[in-house]
Amino acid sequence: MAIITLTTDFGEKDYFAGAVKGAIYSELSDVKIVDISHSVSPFHISEAAYIIKNAYKSFPKGSIHIIGIDSELTPENKHLAVKLDEHYFICANNGILSLLASEIMPEKIVEINIHDKIQTNFPVLDVFVKVACHISRGGTLEVIGKSVSEIRHLKQFEPLINSEKDQILGHVIYVDNYGNVITNISRKLFESVGKGRDFKISARNVNFNMIYETYSHAINFNVEKENRKEEDGKKLAVFNSAGYIELAIYKSNPSTVGSAASLFGLEYLDTITVNFE
Amino acid sequence: MAIITLTTDFGEKDYFAGAVKGAIYSELSDVKIVDISHSVSPFHISEAAYIIKNAYKSFPKGSIHIIGIDSELTPENKHLAVKLDEHYFICANNGILSLLASEIMPEKIVEINIHDKIQTNFPVLDVFVKVACHISRGGTLEVIGKSVSEIRHLKQFEPLINSEKDQILGHVIYVDNYGNVITNISRKLFESVGKGRDFKISARNVNFNMIYETYSHAINFNVEKENRKEEDGKKLAVFNSAGYIELAIYKSNPSTVGSAASLFGLEYLDTITVNFE
Amino acid sequence: MAIITLTTDFGEKDYFAGAVKGAIYSELSDVKIVDISHSVSPFHISEAAYIIKNAYKSFPKGSIHIIGIDSELTPENKHLAVKLDEHYFICANNGILSLLASEIMPEKIVEINIHDKIQTNFPVLDVFVKVACHISRGGTLEVIGKSVSEIRHLKQFEPLINSEKDQILGHVIYVDNYGNVITNISRKLFESVGKGRDFKISARNVNFNMIYETYSHAINFNVEKENRKEEDGKKLAVFNSAGYIELAIYKSNPSTVGSAASLFGLEYLDTITVNFE
Repeated sequence: MAIITLTTDFGEKDYFAGAVKGAIYSELSDVKIVDISHSVSPFHISEAAYIIKNAYKSFPKGSIHIIGIDSELTPENKHLAVKLDEHYFICANNGILSLLASEIMPEKIVEINIHDKIQTNFPVLDVFVKVACHISRGGTLEVIGKSVSEIRHLKQFEPLINSEKDQILGHVIYVDNYGNVITNISRKLFESVGKGRDFKISARNVNFNMIYETYSHAINFNVEKENRKEEDGKKLAVFNSAGYIELAIYKSNPSTVGSAASLFGLEYLDTITVNFE
Repeated sequence: MAIITLTTDFGEKDYFAGAVKGAIYSELSDVKIVDISHSVSPFHISEAAYIIKNAYKSFPKGSIHIIGIDSELTPENKHLAVKLDEHYFICANNGILSLLASEIMPEKIVEINIHDKIQTNFPVLDVFVKVACHISRGGTLEVIGKSVSEIRHLKQFEPLINSEKDQILGHVIYVDNYGNVITNISRKLFESVGKGRDFKISARNVNFNMIYETYSHAINFNVEKENRKEEDGKKLAVFNSAGYIELAIYKSNPSTVGSAASLFGLEYLDTITVNFE
Repeated sequence: MAIITLTTDFGEKDYFAGAVKGAIYSELSDVKIVDISHSVSPFHISEAAYIIKNAYKSFPKGSIHIIGIDSELTPENKHLAVKLDEHYFICANNGILSLLASEIMPEKIVEINIHDKIQTNFPVLDVFVKVACHISRGGTLEVIGKSVSEIRHLKQFEPLINSEKDQILGHVIYVDNYGNVITNISRKLFESVGKGRDFKISARNVNFNMIYETYSHAINFNVEKENRKEEDGKKLAVFNSAGYIELAIYKSNPSTVGSAASLFGLEYLDTITVNFE
């Protein structure tokens, strides 16, 4: 049975996601529709990329992923259907694909050309659903678009390494539900540049010289629980489940005790520096 | 396979929506349950109407739509099951049906009478689910209710046309996830009153004399991108995907740069005027 | 077909819930995945318990419930799989089970031991999904864990009865989407202690001497609607659909007119007293 996932900035309230699901069921009775997220910040391409990139890999090969972010068709924002890592992605050519395809080359990219002068304020419903249903019925990408090799790139999202190879300059790419701050510095990059050297991570007013494997590795469980009260709220750096350096607060709650984002004063695109000795 | 959709003000956190889905699966193993929205503002009948009205049409004929808004059974708020446009709706007689049925006459309305002295604080779970499952098994409305012809009307929601036929007085019926402001003035009404004349839309401190077909039609793509920077955030009026006049900000984000609602200072029920020349 | 439900504090935005659903579908094609809630407050064990406790009972026997709250594996926070009330629960041993099992004894509790040195920041994905899929394929708990009889208890959540048996001291355990305040005093406890005596409920600055069966029982429908305008916003106590005493505002909306929580000034863990005459 085909799986079609939805990642959008439609929000939880509006009729958009419901209408899209209805339209899919109207075309296909035998399909699983999975909401990945509808709470991407409006028009926030890199947030959407972070979410779909880390969600899609858990799905079976052949799954079809609709990305409804900044998807209005314009002369500069064409619609794409893409096969990458044996998954299908349907999205606008707004740069998101360059973030998804930063490590894995797409097998096939087509520019969707079934619009036939469709003017629409709701391209996910009127175009992406049709393409997704076409693919789920076994249709090829060539039928609904023409092959392209160039896609739009968002360059600013790559971390920089200095010429002495002792500094990585990254930035914040995401703040999660716990208020933890995710950087664009991957474990792989960190290890390949650092080669085991000591280091200091600096971000505004906090510093770390250790990156834990899990959150609770920051806690010393040999000390009895009563004597570790202050460790709830401990500041730590961790390799998160997506494989990036994350600055976190142990068991934070953004709406009560605060979070890494609020306590460290960090926002999307703020600079994070790693200096190696 | 039957489709049952849910549109409620239960919110995303509480156990209500989960319990309702569990109860449906306990009665029916072969059913698709689709969340349309659980984030309708509490007791907000016209918001719920706007959402379900624009979502249900995408679903296959015969779908069953549970509307869990202001649904407590009282002497003044009976429960209804309705066939309309070849879809089924289960809701309270609180006025929402008059908003749904403003253009399409219901084929059948029954007042649900299976309560049999059920006292419940959770009528969606205890009554609406039973009715939905009955219908999905092919049961008729007559079995679970008695036919009625009168329903409760919410009158204030119709736009007014002056006697000179050169002014439409509408108001804000919805603010969407992007902070865009949706009026109750449909394209159909606008065109039938305006007959192609020039016009001015006025809403508090903004005016528009043009309504675009899509958001990006407001942008001049002949000018190079670098020279149009100021167009992100452009104010515009558009016929939205639901067919209403919408006042919008191009690529707005309510939590950062602001939105039409916040920048124009417009709220639910505020007046929108269209004057024709 | 197996049913697997999800109750987590992942929030609506992040990739976590999507990844979990993808992983389940990768192991099982024939399964229904039901979101109960992903909006539990971060690390809020008693909120999660209230939600899952009141949702699971509506699901068919044999359903599998994943609870993703405070689930990182530590020496003090082992992973459990539990059979209780003919349902399966997979959670961490952080006290939540003691809240779920306060009335019904678990039939079987095992401490999951399939980790085999898995270090993970995402135990719901890497461990709980595997266990859920194992159970849904008919596997026994003994295969994935070793039987335990002791679980961690959260004691503070039980209401206290004084020695004269004329007072119940409870507290707020949950605030719902409408801002209504739910206490941990059940109807059963209230009736067994009160034995029909008159009473006064006190909570900070409000008092009640009546508990309604439904919200609208607080409204006198014999008075014509126009003359009861002030009853929207009426303060009332009610036995809610979960069977607890709830302090409510009739048709409240937290973001406009306010709610019981905001108007009564009540928060999680605040004291609620019932004095009997």
